[in-house]
Amino acid sequence: MAKVKKAPRPKAQTPKGFRDYFGAEVTERADMLKTIAEVYHQYGFDALESSGVETVEALGKFLPDVDRPNEGVFAWQDEDDAWMALRYDLTAPLARVYAQHRNDLPLPYRRYAMGPVWRNEKPGPGRYRQFYQCDADTVGAANVAADAEICAMLSDTLERVGIPRGDYLVRVNNRKVLNGVLETMGLSDDKQRDDVLRTIDKFDKVGEAGVRELLGKGRLDASGAYIDGVGLSADQAEPVVAFLTSKDADVAKTFANLQDAIGGSKVGSEGVGELEKIGDLLAAQGYGADRIEIDPSVVRGLGYYTGPVFEAELTFEILDDKGRKRQFGSVAGGGRYDDLVKRFTGQEVPATGVSIGVDRLLAALREKGRIGGTVAAGPVVVTVMDKNRMADYQTMVAELRNAGIRAEVYLGNPKNFGNQLKYADKRQSPVAVIEGGDEHENGVVQIKDLILGAKIAENATLEEWKERPSQYEVPRDQLVAKVREILDLNS
Amino acid sequence: MAKVKKAPRPKAQTPKGFRDYFGAEVTERADMLKTIAEVYHQYGFDALESSGVETVEALGKFLPDVDRPNEGVFAWQDEDDAWMALRYDLTAPLARVYAQHRNDLPLPYRRYAMGPVWRNEKPGPGRYRQFYQCDADTVGAANVAADAEICAMLSDTLERVGIPRGDYLVRVNNRKVLNGVLETMGLSDDKQRDDVLRTIDKFDKVGEAGVRELLGKGRLDASGAYIDGVGLSADQAEPVVAFLTSKDADVAKTFANLQDAIGGSKVGSEGVGELEKIGDLLAAQGYGADRIEIDPSVVRGLGYYTGPVFEAELTFEILDDKGRKRQFGSVAGGGRYDDLVKRFTGQEVPATGVSIGVDRLLAALREKGRIGGTVAAGPVVVTVMDKNRMADYQTMVAELRNAGIRAEVYLGNPKNFGNQLKYADKRQSPVAVIEGGDEHENGVVQIKDLILGAKIAENATLEEWKERPSQYEVPRDQLVAKVREILDLNS
Repeated sequence: MAKVKKAPRPKAQTPKGFRDYFGAEVTERADMLKTIAEVYHQYGFDALESSGVETVEALGKFLPDVDRPNEGVFAWQDEDDAWMALRYDLTAPLARVYAQHRNDLPLPYRRYAMGPVWRNEKPGPGRYRQFYQCDADTVGAANVAADAEICAMLSDTLERVGIPRGDYLVRVNNRKVLNGVLETMGLSDDKQRDDVLRTIDKFDKVGEAGVRELLGKGRLDASGAYIDGVGLSADQAEPVVAFLTSKDADVAKTFANLQDAIGGSKVGSEGVGELEKIGDLLAAQGYGADRIEIDPSVVRGLGYYTGPVFEAELTFEILDDKGRKRQFGSVAGGGRYDDLVKRFTGQEVPATGVSIGVDRLLAALREKGRIGGTVAAGPVVVTVMDKNRMADYQTMVAELRNAGIRAEVYLGNPKNFGNQLKYADKRQSPVAVIEGGDEHENGVVQIKDLILGAKIAENATLEEWKERPSQYEVPRDQLVAKVREILDLNS
Repeated sequence: MAKVKKAPRPKAQTPKGFRDYFGAEVTERADMLKTIAEVYHQYGFDALESSGVETVEALGKFLPDVDRPNEGVFAWQDEDDAWMALRYDLTAPLARVYAQHRNDLPLPYRRYAMGPVWRNEKPGPGRYRQFYQCDADTVGAANVAADAEICAMLSDTLERVGIPRGDYLVRVNNRKVLNGVLETMGLSDDKQRDDVLRTIDKFDKVGEAGVRELLGKGRLDASGAYIDGVGLSADQAEPVVAFLTSKDADVAKTFANLQDAIGGSKVGSEGVGELEKIGDLLAAQGYGADRIEIDPSVVRGLGYYTGPVFEAELTFEILDDKGRKRQFGSVAGGGRYDDLVKRFTGQEVPATGVSIGVDRLLAALREKGRIGGTVAAGPVVVTVMDKNRMADYQTMVAELRNAGIRAEVYLGNPKNFGNQLKYADKRQSPVAVIEGGDEHENGVVQIKDLILGAKIAENATLEEWKERPSQYEVPRDQLVAKVREILDLNS
């Protein structure tokens, strides 16, 4: 208290790139996480919750496009000058957890995790620095049956949270196939390899002809800018094009095409074999191409994938900011990463998993009108006509709550009754309860049906208004019964 | 990939003071949070989720015993050199949120929030740097009816999560009464005031005589160390002692004693009046002294409280680390803080709320055997006898799951069958399913009741062992029915 100088008022603002979530935004997310956890649990996955903070050395540098250790993360030094950081995903912490507790954990270890992650990246529209992920991973299973299981579970999960079959597709590819293609091209130059990968990633946008141009001399893009090409000859580029166009309605044909694209590459052949096995396992369980399909154009940015990669896309169309139709796009992705635990232990521990972008999935469900939009469950508001009788009003709300009805007493300044009704309106209250001195004397309460009241105010003729009263006087001891009756009518 | 030097292996460790939570630890907490949220929601409170990161200036410096802005918190500078920090509680963010969004929020604003908070404090046994809080606050209600409501809701919440009446007590006091006592003592010296407050906080431990000594010359404590006293005369100390000993079985007598202790202090009298009103409101709703009581010895450390303060204690005894009996102690606390929003807006906005220490409450329920300890819901494990028939095994688990049974296929190296059963054991599986080549040919599966098997292995005589087989052979199409039968028998 030695400080005398008065500090200026702090600004009431979320830090740049962060936001607050209110009411249904919070509860709808919690509900979705609970549903997803139920599916994961059913599949034998166990919950894991690690803390938001990890050592920078444990996190490593696996963010896409990030080279320096604490670029892309929020990091600081602890009292011993060691660097700590907020986790940027749930996979790096899993690798650390598994390495740390491996003697106590079952092998294979199936775990799920859900919670916020943080990225120190430039925020943008709909792009925040804290967001939720919901992951499931299997550590210690080399068999691609583990990958197939993850894909099946992802499909089940999407349907369970409310994305109907036909509105999504889980697309599966294999990094090894891609590596086989690059091998058969004989690219030794790392930069050229990276350029080719980047080009493959653009296939969805520019199509086959565009990819040919970009692999060759270059291409004039839609904005009129000239994009330099990778500089390959048409012959050299052929395996990439063959790979990208290998998808066929007949999955056996797809595999044959892939086999062609990889030439004689051993790793490529291994990759095609794994994809076939995943396809067979899924087909045997009835997951057809309407839910999960082999798609060679899936690349996934992260460098740590070593085998199968998968992505869940929502295939229905929405309007973007500029009113143009586009597919909703990716809501989940993952793959096999056999080297992450090895970082810690030196021993290779195969692992595979998926991460669901919960906030994007919620946005999709809102877009489709599958959550939100229902009548908000505002509380019954008991108004205060005489502030000395607060105990009576609190007793009313207690009675309502004990009957399972959400209820509250107005706790602001009760002087202006209009403010109380405005408050009830802002709270989206279905019912207001009024008990002034006269009512108290006569042992009655007034019960106002605010939803009906609002409808009448909007539409009714004078006759209807008179015929359909939205306010009822009932004996005090019928308070709960009458409120319930109104709630039932409106539900 | 220009880097050539090989980095040393990172350590697989949680940062100091952090920990990982596994399985039931995670789901039991999630279940408790869900239950608490239901009670809060029923009382008309709306969910709010702010991010873990705030600006240091918004957080302010309200941690107990912390003077410098970013002491006690984890803080770092963002790209504009502004200081950011992890929130240390959910109250400071609420004040920021309310100030930022006040034009859109109802007034009063009842909100609940739950999530991790972080403290950069010395970790200790059971004391972590990240832990969960679960808060409910009412912003914009000056009436102490809001405080009474919080106390009633806290009592309801504790019972709902499984603390029976009689095993807890919500204790209520009022800072204004304490201020009245200090005023009537005529202490102008801040240091002396602080010393007196600290002494009051020790009343539970040292009792009336001890407090008298500590307010006077000093006291020899149990360890043999001499603790300097505040240096007051016996007369000066009298109001403090009168205040601390004012609690009477007859609550009217308690209030009379408090009135004596505060002498003629205006603020003290206001405080007693508020306490009486809270007592009346709670009594009218049937919350008696078996649930909520007025207790002048409740102080609460935080400097920002301005009126009523409350604390929920669990009153049952547990054994401490040294095997001594002690009360479980505090699991929740809160109070009225009328100045927190004012920091931002300049306008006084009354507020009151409570924070539940979820992890301590979980520990209490585990201590009482109210959660955990039941048979863990391990998955049914389908073993792999022939790795080329993985699709068949995955189909089995899919059937089981579709019937609502948690199930998984063994995904490790299937070579050693013993390892598969050890795995099932580690997973606390109730049932293992076995289908080798012979079974497959004969269209049957073996189903092993692992719980019964373990019991028999532990207790049974040879006859019993023979009489109660724990392994059954059933036709393949009766797999689900037989597994369900065994699960039902064991549940």
